Amino acid sequence: MRCEVVAVGTELLLGQIIDSNSAWIGERLAQAGIDSHFQTKVGDNLERIVVALGTALERSDAVICCGGLGPTQDDITRDAIARMLGVPLERDEAMVATIEAIFAGRNRPFPPFNARQADRPAGATFLPQTLGTAPGLRCPVGEGPGAKVLYAVPGVPDEMRDMVERAVIPDLQARSGTLATIRSRTLRAWGLAESALAELLGPRIEALDGDPQGPTIAFLASGIEGTKVRMTVKAPTDEVAVVALDAEEHLLRGILGDLVFGVDDQTMESVVGDLLRQRRWTLALAESMTGGLVSSRIVDTPEASSWFKGGVVAYASEVKFGVLGVQPGPVVSEECAVQMAEGARRLLDTDVGLSVTGVAGPDRQENQPVGTAWLGVALPSGAEAVHVRLPGNRLRIRQLATISLLDLLRRRLLALEV
Amino acid sequence: MRCEVVAVGTELLLGQIIDSNSAWIGERLAQAGIDSHFQTKVGDNLERIVVALGTALERSDAVICCGGLGPTQDDITRDAIARMLGVPLERDEAMVATIEAIFAGRNRPFPPFNARQADRPAGATFLPQTLGTAPGLRCPVGEGPGAKVLYAVPGVPDEMRDMVERAVIPDLQARSGTLATIRSRTLRAWGLAESALAELLGPRIEALDGDPQGPTIAFLASGIEGTKVRMTVKAPTDEVAVVALDAEEHLLRGILGDLVFGVDDQTMESVVGDLLRQRRWTLALAESMTGGLVSSRIVDTPEASSWFKGGVVAYASEVKFGVLGVQPGPVVSEECAVQMAEGARRLLDTDVGLSVTGVAGPDRQENQPVGTAWLGVALPSGAEAVHVRLPGNRLRIRQLATISLLDLLRRRLLALEV
Repeated sequence: MRCEVVAVGTELLLGQIIDSNSAWIGERLAQAGIDSHFQTKVGDNLERIVVALGTALERSDAVICCGGLGPTQDDITRDAIARMLGVPLERDEAMVATIEAIFAGRNRPFPPFNARQADRPAGATFLPQTLGTAPGLRCPVGEGPGAKVLYAVPGVPDEMRDMVERAVIPDLQARSGTLATIRSRTLRAWGLAESALAELLGPRIEALDGDPQGPTIAFLASGIEGTKVRMTVKAPTDEVAVVALDAEEHLLRGILGDLVFGVDDQTMESVVGDLLRQRRWTLALAESMTGGLVSSRIVDTPEASSWFKGGVVAYASEVKFGVLGVQPGPVVSEECAVQMAEGARRLLDTDVGLSVTGVAGPDRQENQPVGTAWLGVALPSGAEAVHVRLPGNRLRIRQLATISLLDLLRRRLLALEV
Repeated sequence: MRCEVVAVGTELLLGQIIDSNSAWIGERLAQAGIDSHFQTKVGDNLERIVVALGTALERSDAVICCGGLGPTQDDITRDAIARMLGVPLERDEAMVATIEAIFAGRNRPFPPFNARQADRPAGATFLPQTLGTAPGLRCPVGEGPGAKVLYAVPGVPDEMRDMVERAVIPDLQARSGTLATIRSRTLRAWGLAESALAELLGPRIEALDGDPQGPTIAFLASGIEGTKVRMTVKAPTDEVAVVALDAEEHLLRGILGDLVFGVDDQTMESVVGDLLRQRRWTLALAESMTGGLVSSRIVDTPEASSWFKGGVVAYASEVKFGVLGVQPGPVVSEECAVQMAEGARRLLDTDVGLSVTGVAGPDRQENQPVGTAWLGVALPSGAEAVHVRLPGNRLRIRQLATISLLDLLRRRLLALEV
């Protein structure tokens, strides 16, 4: 089973948006054991979309077409598919009603334009929309053993991912009936530079190089998400793949120890949340240089309300002094970080307070270089602060400060006696 | 002159690397007035690279092939080009000497493998390498008026950009003989659904449809960045393009009025910051459902420290009551939003307080549906709150709440007497 991806949008060709949708779909297809040999970008132009879809369907068994399902005049994927298949475009009144209901549910008037999203090439079925207003399409191409299939999904990443995961991949797997699978698992680590991590794992990677059946290992420095160590195996079944990944994970964890904080979708926030929940402890933050970034990462974590109460963004020094009760003095300092953490813990009445103060740049502050940060942690047993030097620009420094601060709490919680 | 891009690399198809090279090349081609209608990704497989290059050369006058020029066994772009053109691959001894000299200049031994980088399809000329070890290729395809050209450049972004800028774009411009340029400008708007915006602009877009010389207009819903309305013009010179964009912007602003908040890289945060700075006013936040997202967006804005003092993330209700002084009661309410904004303004001693409280999901809260939000604004002249219903999942609702809150302040500041 071979499946190509066609991404539609003039902004992709002009480089105004980087096509990350195709990359995501390619990754999911690989995980599902489906080959993808070509991926094409094409602009919002009827004839050229028809050419791109036709070329893709000639070479492959299935095509996922991404983008151009919006309500406006330049959203012409539906028209292009109908043209390519030589069938009329039909408006589905039941789908019009569904879209009207989505607008009504949001207390917004239904713009007549949006009815276009209920158009369907004859013979196609809809892939239901759960996030946006545009349904996807599943269009059969030909009949019998050589039959192919064309899917159309929205270009909005959230909507695309949801629909591909829920409706397209299962359909492709059912069609392919193949038994090979490519599975990956990613360990997430923090506390060492990527190159130091690579050195630690060097002997293991060399040993695997001589073994074509063994897993492959790749690194990816991912900023606020940590350093990712991805293991990939190809196996006849999911069960065999999982056994191989389990064995490799055990081995790598033996080498990396507590540098590993999570697996796959486990973020540093979710791991810290789990540790806090085990103790029924609550957390408050005092953020200066990160300006609310730690907090906004935390509230994206499911169930965060059971352990996170909130915090103070003390961007201006007088907020540190006036609201958090820090003693006036230098704010890029150990004392300030300790008092900010204690202040947050006291003000919000929590078990734990965390703080970060430092220099995100572009200029030095209090004669300290850009990247300097103090991370504070206040526990029921007392408070402390640690010093770090972070690389990169403003945004990167903030992101690294965020994961470093949460990692500090993770290590302190792991070190506590039960 | 039409030029396609073919990016080579299995890691691109598997989504392990996002293909940002093609986007960059596409942007440069547009700036140079060269059309690019298709861009293709293909894996490290000889037959498939031949297919991708052949398909591209059939449809276009020129092709830039990016990647696969390294020294290892999976770098097979040179072989694929020779195969497609039906010519032998020849080793160029002068180029071997050049590559040896590069290694010698870095005090590194010359690995014999690297001699492969001196291979050249018969009839091709080298594009000199100034950063890496791999030269690029310029391969004529056919002769006479229908002659085409194929360029091969490295996949390492720095090397690719240098070579495209220095050797490929000037050659393409010389071949095309045109001096045309393609320029874009993007208006950013907020306050209407994308489809309602499209309806407002419908007559103008229809009028442009009949005018092949006129600008084209495209929409892009971009969440927290607002809805983007992109105008693109093709013109003989940059100056003419700018005049045409100025005229079109004037016309669209006449239609959209204060829905337009910015142009190109102007974010809602930077626009609000400019308005506050004009009055020398300062801002404090009280965030519940957004959990620090508004604040962290603001501190990414240059010069934010001159107008932003900080805020309170009041995720738990008791923080709203205890820290911000909100009267105990329902927290997804007009009263709560007003009191949160007033509380932030009072606690941080600022001119303006902004607040947001609502239901980000996944569950209803206080019997209010997911997406319900109250946005509060406290000015020296008094406080108020407005109700909105936001679509999407947790993350999307937070992002839409963030831009909606800042847009509320923008409108209130614009409405003030001077």
